[in-house]
Amino acid sequence: MNLLSSPLLTDLYQLTMLNAYFAHGMQETAVFELFVRKLPPNRNFMMAAGLEQALDFLENLRFSPDELEWVGKTAIFGADFVEQLEKMRFTGDVQAIPEGTIFFPEEPILRVTATLPEAQLVESRLINLMHFETLVATKAARSVLVAPGKTLVDFGFRRAHGAEAGILAARASYIAGFTGTATVMAGKTMGIPLFGTMAHSFVEAHDDESIAFARFAQTYPHRTTLLIDTYDTVAAARKIVELAARLRENGIRVTGVRLDSGNLEGLAKDVRKILDEGGLHDTSIFASGNLDEYRIHDLIAAAAPIDGFGIGTSLVTSADAPFLDAVYKLEEYAGKPRRKSSPGKATWPGRKQVYRYYDEAARFDHDVLTLEHAPAPGAEPLLVAVMSNGRRLAAAESFRVIRERAASQLACLPDGLKALETADAHYGVQVAPVLCKLAEEMRS
Amino acid sequence: MNLLSSPLLTDLYQLTMLNAYFAHGMQETAVFELFVRKLPPNRNFMMAAGLEQALDFLENLRFSPDELEWVGKTAIFGADFVEQLEKMRFTGDVQAIPEGTIFFPEEPILRVTATLPEAQLVESRLINLMHFETLVATKAARSVLVAPGKTLVDFGFRRAHGAEAGILAARASYIAGFTGTATVMAGKTMGIPLFGTMAHSFVEAHDDESIAFARFAQTYPHRTTLLIDTYDTVAAARKIVELAARLRENGIRVTGVRLDSGNLEGLAKDVRKILDEGGLHDTSIFASGNLDEYRIHDLIAAAAPIDGFGIGTSLVTSADAPFLDAVYKLEEYAGKPRRKSSPGKATWPGRKQVYRYYDEAARFDHDVLTLEHAPAPGAEPLLVAVMSNGRRLAAAESFRVIRERAASQLACLPDGLKALETADAHYGVQVAPVLCKLAEEMRS
Repeated sequence: MNLLSSPLLTDLYQLTMLNAYFAHGMQETAVFELFVRKLPPNRNFMMAAGLEQALDFLENLRFSPDELEWVGKTAIFGADFVEQLEKMRFTGDVQAIPEGTIFFPEEPILRVTATLPEAQLVESRLINLMHFETLVATKAARSVLVAPGKTLVDFGFRRAHGAEAGILAARASYIAGFTGTATVMAGKTMGIPLFGTMAHSFVEAHDDESIAFARFAQTYPHRTTLLIDTYDTVAAARKIVELAARLRENGIRVTGVRLDSGNLEGLAKDVRKILDEGGLHDTSIFASGNLDEYRIHDLIAAAAPIDGFGIGTSLVTSADAPFLDAVYKLEEYAGKPRRKSSPGKATWPGRKQVYRYYDEAARFDHDVLTLEHAPAPGAEPLLVAVMSNGRRLAAAESFRVIRERAASQLACLPDGLKALETADAHYGVQVAPVLCKLAEEMRS
Repeated sequence: MNLLSSPLLTDLYQLTMLNAYFAHGMQETAVFELFVRKLPPNRNFMMAAGLEQALDFLENLRFSPDELEWVGKTAIFGADFVEQLEKMRFTGDVQAIPEGTIFFPEEPILRVTATLPEAQLVESRLINLMHFETLVATKAARSVLVAPGKTLVDFGFRRAHGAEAGILAARASYIAGFTGTATVMAGKTMGIPLFGTMAHSFVEAHDDESIAFARFAQTYPHRTTLLIDTYDTVAAARKIVELAARLRENGIRVTGVRLDSGNLEGLAKDVRKILDEGGLHDTSIFASGNLDEYRIHDLIAAAAPIDGFGIGTSLVTSADAPFLDAVYKLEEYAGKPRRKSSPGKATWPGRKQVYRYYDEAARFDHDVLTLEHAPAPGAEPLLVAVMSNGRRLAAAESFRVIRERAASQLACLPDGLKALETADAHYGVQVAPVLCKLAEEMRS
């Protein structure tokens, strides 16, 4: 059993509902859409991510013998149900907004059209995957916006919520425009560029800081970044200058130093001066330590001479907004539109499409949420077909393609939406009259 | 390759440091301790969890042929390093605070004593596992404290940060005193009790809500909880009373209803009244929908007749405090104590122990952080040996044992620390003079 692709990554109620659907012959076509109800605090847009993992999950859906045996042994389900699960594959269609695309509340980023049991079972894991990657891509895009031209590296694995979160956070931030990650497994399994320097323990394990620096540089003669804040950052910068002169004779370059604590603005300026005066103009300064897009914004505004940033906990937990109000809702069953009308949680019925309109400067002007086949002349439909009869319609998109899309989407954002704080005016998402009318008809 | 146990669940700098350690013969004994620097907002204590997964990781540490091949193909490492990794196992000792124990900032919850490379490599994953489970156990304990006698169920999988987070959150909240989880995989792999009802989609897929209720009840005649807020909660409660009378003739009982939106206090009171007037005194009311310990506290204070709560997103993301300042620091190498003195991040050197003192009412009075073998007459040492030479000293603790410990720890908390808001006075953690003296000696 590969735990990460198991169909038992679901809520018990999905299985209890499936059992009832089978028992009552409810296997007609259902349409579910995945969307975010509203923006969290401090967010003016969201960036879609996680589709690739979602499609993988759907394409490989099947119950293993071990899983079927376990289901059969629970007191809840009978042998008939286990037989149905054994045959179960995902054979439906999927429409989605491509990864790296910017989207807004109420806009579906994924639509699943399948038999009711198939579409129901996968709800929990589809949200679990797409919610998290979208959360982190959205968070990462904010650092990308405030730090153009800087190296941005995901340092977050240790405080990510489990291993999968660490790996998917590396992917989502890379999609959004990060330079790479420190998480080795994300490099191995997904080919994301890896970055790494040294830790305080390396310095502390030596009796002399300079010896620690020298040994590390000797081990990596062509690319070495030395961590200089273990004891006294300014003193360590002076040691680097001394050391670099000696190392140069052996063809060894100190390519960078890292600051991880203290007043990063002041220290970066002091260290830059020391390095420059010592002739180390090419030695870059990398900063880390409780950084997020707010602090990076301030450091850049203060002209701190920092070339790159390692961003950890705040990125991978999306600390100022650790979840999105992401849901997956039934919009149609057996050919009839459906909706819930619970207070504060009412949904728009039917199969929907999002059309995007651009202004004269080729920036996003507004979106229209409407029914799938409603006309929208001159607008760009965001949802496209990605899976048919349970098979992907094309190979997985490359990171190059997704990252270019993300960059181009960020460039098309209206300026007001690029701010780190909540914008005065939300981006316009208009609900088309035809959709309002359908909802109204269903209400009455 | 089992992704979740891979030694490549680490940061690149651990590998680059290991390579340098091997190159310079630095394989003497290192001591690292894992602790949390400070309490996050709204927390007065923390509850340790995740040790079981951490020990599993250590006991099974080895590089697979596929992983070794990948390391060899990176441009960074040579064949010598790959040979070293191939031989690598975790052969060290581990001391830890047992799961379910309450602890405070600066107190080590795990100590690793091993060769420097072994102890270094595992840093990232040890924090990744123990940080998250401790985070969620701590969050869950707050709901347990405010809702004595209530059924508490983890509903969070879909918005957990990936699959492993969903499963480990189910474990951590169960340790803290939750009744169970909706996450099927946590039931299958860890034996945590599973709970589940029905979703709105089940109701919506029927043209008539009463038919949906009847079908679900017929499928689960002895234990059925019906979701009644899809359209109009009060009207649905009346339908339940009507339906229950008919079902009873066939031996079918409606054991519970679930509310998931709206004014839960008012609705619970209305629904309770309708159920009682309809003779359904035994039908319980279960509530969910953006719940956390603050809302549960208020609902209980308002005497809302709710028997159980499903808690999702806020629990599994620890939404009001989505991370802890958890670190793993070198405290000794080659027989000499070590410490970093970076501003705001200085550490206490040496192998430490935490002693807990109780007051006359058998409540926690204060703790003392001191060196391992310093005497502390009449106090309880919290760190105990759990692994020696890379092997566990005892079988994994059962949930029964851990849950009893957690309950007893919560009962011993001073009242002021049980509040949901930050207490006026922090719990006392005294640093023993012998430890202050050692740190001072190292400073000078």
